[in-house]
Amino acid sequence: MTNSFLRSVFGDLHSDREIAAEFGAPAFTKRMLRFEAAWTRALAAEGLVSSEDAAVSLRAIESFDQYDFAEGSLSDGVPVPALVRALRSGLEEGPSKAIHTGATSQDVVDTAMALTLVRVTELLRKHLEDLVRALDGVSRQFGAHPLMARTRMQAALPATAELRINAWQQAVEEQLKRSDDALAEIAVAQVGGPIGLREAPDGKGAAIAERVSRELGLELTGVWHTDRSGPVSFGHWLTLVCGIMGKIGQDIALMAQQGISEIELSGGGGSSAMPHKQNPISAEAMVTLARYVAVQQGALAQAMVHEQERSGAAWALEWMTLPAMAEATGAALRHGVTVVNRIERVGVEE
Amino acid sequence: MTNSFLRSVFGDLHSDREIAAEFGAPAFTKRMLRFEAAWTRALAAEGLVSSEDAAVSLRAIESFDQYDFAEGSLSDGVPVPALVRALRSGLEEGPSKAIHTGATSQDVVDTAMALTLVRVTELLRKHLEDLVRALDGVSRQFGAHPLMARTRMQAALPATAELRINAWQQAVEEQLKRSDDALAEIAVAQVGGPIGLREAPDGKGAAIAERVSRELGLELTGVWHTDRSGPVSFGHWLTLVCGIMGKIGQDIALMAQQGISEIELSGGGGSSAMPHKQNPISAEAMVTLARYVAVQQGALAQAMVHEQERSGAAWALEWMTLPAMAEATGAALRHGVTVVNRIERVGVEE
Amino acid sequence: MTNSFLRSVFGDLHSDREIAAEFGAPAFTKRMLRFEAAWTRALAAEGLVSSEDAAVSLRAIESFDQYDFAEGSLSDGVPVPALVRALRSGLEEGPSKAIHTGATSQDVVDTAMALTLVRVTELLRKHLEDLVRALDGVSRQFGAHPLMARTRMQAALPATAELRINAWQQAVEEQLKRSDDALAEIAVAQVGGPIGLREAPDGKGAAIAERVSRELGLELTGVWHTDRSGPVSFGHWLTLVCGIMGKIGQDIALMAQQGISEIELSGGGGSSAMPHKQNPISAEAMVTLARYVAVQQGALAQAMVHEQERSGAAWALEWMTLPAMAEATGAALRHGVTVVNRIERVGVEE
Amino acid sequence: MTNSFLRSVFGDLHSDREIAAEFGAPAFTKRMLRFEAAWTRALAAEGLVSSEDAAVSLRAIESFDQYDFAEGSLSDGVPVPALVRALRSGLEEGPSKAIHTGATSQDVVDTAMALTLVRVTELLRKHLEDLVRALDGVSRQFGAHPLMARTRMQAALPATAELRINAWQQAVEEQLKRSDDALAEIAVAQVGGPIGLREAPDGKGAAIAERVSRELGLELTGVWHTDRSGPVSFGHWLTLVCGIMGKIGQDIALMAQQGISEIELSGGGGSSAMPHKQNPISAEAMVTLARYVAVQQGALAQAMVHEQERSGAAWALEWMTLPAMAEATGAALRHGVTVVNRIERVGVEE
Repeated sequence: MTNSFLRSVFGDLHSDREIAAEFGAPAFTKRMLRFEAAWTRALAAEGLVSSEDAAVSLRAIESFDQYDFAEGSLSDGVPVPALVRALRSGLEEGPSKAIHTGATSQDVVDTAMALTLVRVTELLRKHLEDLVRALDGVSRQFGAHPLMARTRMQAALPATAELRINAWQQAVEEQLKRSDDALAEIAVAQVGGPIGLREAPDGKGAAIAERVSRELGLELTGVWHTDRSGPVSFGHWLTLVCGIMGKIGQDIALMAQQGISEIELSGGGGSSAMPHKQNPISAEAMVTLARYVAVQQGALAQAMVHEQERSGAAWALEWMTLPAMAEATGAALRHGVTVVNRIERVGVEE
Repeated sequence: MTNSFLRSVFGDLHSDREIAAEFGAPAFTKRMLRFEAAWTRALAAEGLVSSEDAAVSLRAIESFDQYDFAEGSLSDGVPVPALVRALRSGLEEGPSKAIHTGATSQDVVDTAMALTLVRVTELLRKHLEDLVRALDGVSRQFGAHPLMARTRMQAALPATAELRINAWQQAVEEQLKRSDDALAEIAVAQVGGPIGLREAPDGKGAAIAERVSRELGLELTGVWHTDRSGPVSFGHWLTLVCGIMGKIGQDIALMAQQGISEIELSGGGGSSAMPHKQNPISAEAMVTLARYVAVQQGALAQAMVHEQERSGAAWALEWMTLPAMAEATGAALRHGVTVVNRIERVGVEE
Repeated sequence: MTNSFLRSVFGDLHSDREIAAEFGAPAFTKRMLRFEAAWTRALAAEGLVSSEDAAVSLRAIESFDQYDFAEGSLSDGVPVPALVRALRSGLEEGPSKAIHTGATSQDVVDTAMALTLVRVTELLRKHLEDLVRALDGVSRQFGAHPLMARTRMQAALPATAELRINAWQQAVEEQLKRSDDALAEIAVAQVGGPIGLREAPDGKGAAIAERVSRELGLELTGVWHTDRSGPVSFGHWLTLVCGIMGKIGQDIALMAQQGISEIELSGGGGSSAMPHKQNPISAEAMVTLARYVAVQQGALAQAMVHEQERSGAAWALEWMTLPAMAEATGAALRHGVTVVNRIERVGVEE
Repeated sequence: MTNSFLRSVFGDLHSDREIAAEFGAPAFTKRMLRFEAAWTRALAAEGLVSSEDAAVSLRAIESFDQYDFAEGSLSDGVPVPALVRALRSGLEEGPSKAIHTGATSQDVVDTAMALTLVRVTELLRKHLEDLVRALDGVSRQFGAHPLMARTRMQAALPATAELRINAWQQAVEEQLKRSDDALAEIAVAQVGGPIGLREAPDGKGAAIAERVSRELGLELTGVWHTDRSGPVSFGHWLTLVCGIMGKIGQDIALMAQQGISEIELSGGGGSSAMPHKQNPISAEAMVTLARYVAVQQGALAQAMVHEQERSGAAWALEWMTLPAMAEATGAALRHGVTVVNRIERVGVEE
């Protein structure tokens, strides 16, 4: 979850259980294991290890079910050395060598993160599709209702509700389309070996990279161990999606003001002091999440200053920001679907 | 923890279990209950409820042990309405009225957060004191060793190690001193009632505010429900503390470079591909955390734009940032103590 | 310039005169006038004004040479009402109506900004091309020199200079390619009229939008008056470009350390106290600019929360950030070209 | 000005001419010269140079009137080496040595910046005092008018206008008081010499530091060349002041909505398309400026990660952010005074 306070005191208000689970140790470890399995198969296919040794390794990888690398991560900066030690433990030299040889921690973590973000995109897409449908219904039902257009927070000209709803729809649909570009930014395997040459092991690095990326369903481009524009661009898409949710939330909160009354919502939050109030909780949360994610992008983008052949300091900024941004975007989209589904009126009834 | 990925995959590398626990539902609920108990006692002391009813209420409050308000928070935007409903459940009208009457959700959440941040400051102070001690030892042991002073990343003039170590010490000691100012910013009860007038219930709001703040060991100033400079200023202190950790971490990472070799550390992280490497994991993490917290301050400060008598959207930005900033600062200080304790040499041995 | 202190005390160190000029009042006003001229021609072509009146208006527009709308901007929030008043001043009713009728301030400012950013992209592209060439030369000349690869700031494995130079080249070339996507984000006319319906004047809004965008060499999509993903995405590209400059600058500053000496540069900054020093000023500035621009993106993205049919508050955030980001990126690229051209050695000579 | 686009196209809308001038080359150079003059006097007082040589030097310093160090700053990273070369040019060895000997560029730039921020604080204080007075008038005139209190953007309970106005006043008065703390953070001379030892020249560094700081009316503490908490804390105060302006601006923009009509303002911005509109330009600008400055603080705070004995990269982040933040705060306060003085009604007339 985005942080422990939000998770445990506020539940799903600013967090997203489903997306959080994708970043959790079990899901992430399974993706690291998928990398290691693909690597072992590639080593065997390239003739670098015997198929017997590879078979033993694969059984070890596939039956592996430990997910706690906290201790190892704290001392090594990444969970991979501890994972590899655990995978190799008890294996003889042959099968041991058929695991991870020629790969580096960054290959495993970056590729597992790529697989995670692919899955996250699927989840967010589903929410975006739900939202498009929900907005479509609202547009058809209330689009023709009179609504005062407002610019600079002032009444501008009389219009109909579809003016505002269409602006929401157009923006949401555009970002649903853009999800393909966002995917393309991160659905890419990172295989570079210790310093990014893609040579190890035994000069077969490139061939192995091909095999691994194909098995994992990821693209293969040049190494991206030091060029972090992929993750930063994925964060940018999250920022846009969340920003649009912020716009919709802000609009709804403004429309719901007594005296304006351009929208009517069912549900709404209660107050401990004023039982008569119906607070537009989801709309407010959408604004909060948009502002939060926007600023995170400014932290994530610092990861571009990635020195030499690997910067632990810059790299970790991605881990501090991207999972929280993804969760926040999931939460914002859920709120978007919820609040749009609760619309009982937009504009003024004639 | 700062986010679910960091917590479950990276353990304590960028998180702080101890500080996370202070923001967790059990600890936070206990602080909300301390507020409610103080409120009930104040209602009785001011003669607004009978001491019998208050006694029943207090038993209910003191024996309360549910900590899951996720559902309620999601629908009401804060956990308080659900908490109050649960506290009152099964009580007769008298004791029911002796709970929370005249208070508002924001009073409870802000005051419980103040109590939490007081505790967090104590924890961080302990780390700061440990660090001062550790630096003092290093200074005494290695201060006289020759060290090349470097400006703009270039060799400047020959000096001794104490030049650099003293700069670290001076900055850390200063922020230890400043912890009092930071405390003063947030060790303040928020009691304003529904819209911040501090009148309810029955015009006794001010007297109750006095009693509640005294019982909780907090200061009482004007209401701060819409002026968020207190939490933002506390975040500023975290930013300074973490920034200094970033400076120390960056210095150590630079000093540890082969070819420079101005520091020798025991321990250090391993590599899955290059077993000979000793990575300065703690030093790197300190830089990451400093950059992360610095940018968070830019999100937290958005909470100042707090519209009207309560902004759900602006308020929640504090919850999204402050707990993560506090945890990150805790983690950075722990790394600081760890890395300084691992110093086996600074400067060049003569 | 990025701010008055930088401009007047630091000259081109963190600023870019050429890009600043594109955002200056004369250049920007000329682009607003191009919009107005295209609009007048479109009004005539659609038969909404007589060609005689349009001819008079066009003469007024084309001979207009006042560039000071500071007073008007301060009172109206945008320079357009004052511009239109000035253009119409002294004209009879017919020619007066042939100016701006049916357009709104946002159409003018957004479209003039689009034209400005198109020009800025051209300028940045030229720098990127120069940098690609410069890096290519360095790669050919020094690529085979031995260089110690470094990960997590520690010596990793022996390699050659091309490992690092190629990483720079690949990232720069990628962003040169991406400049087309960046252009596509902002080379789009905004024509929506008062509230974004693209109907005014007289239902001919769509036809006029076609004509205006064609004349200005811009694409035409749906209105984007409230969906600010275009400018925010352009800012994202600037962030990536500047981030890569930060990576290169950081690498060079690290390589230039005495004791590491993996690079030799001609020139370099002097010191008032230590005349022997050769400071890597350009490399440092590249890091500063990258960190600055990264955080600005977090401010720019707040502009997505653009309420109702026009938000003065959100819109203006684009003006506060994008021009400074563009200038900073220009400055960073200039430094990149300068510093790469000053390279006299990379790696260790054999 | 905050950037060249804002300055030349938008005038004083998001900029502040008066504060910009304090950061301009003439004003800043005069402050650098005040430092150099104090330094020369201190060198003579400590007997390090003859009083005859010092007198010649002082005449050169006092009659100096060149303000263009752009070229020098670009090559040296700071204007000081070029300034010192220009000051010494044409002087014989004695007077030449009586200038700057033992000082370093950072001493000059940091101390001149301290003097600049002292002056900026005076200017901002004046605005804050004007605002306190203006709010006081509004409170006395309209405080008793009925006003609906609003929480979470929803009507909460009937109240009077003073509820909201007092919240504004209390926050503004608090920050006026806090201006003393802000001053204390930056009214401190930086005198450390080349690497911050405060020893040069000839072991008289401490005595000279005393004399220089006394003459300049600044405090003297330990060196702060690498601990940037002073400037960052000053930025924090700007963030709070600007944040409060954002709150007031947001409230006023919400109150001015048709349908709410809780405030009436004279003046207000015109629209090029809708002449009937009265846009709350100042109120909107206050929100923009608050959000802008909040995020800048996240960039400024990165300056804390200041490596070794001087980081050109981290240091320059202060120059990129603080002047723009100061200007933005000046502009926000001016808007605050303007808009409050234009209030013709708050609340509902009875």
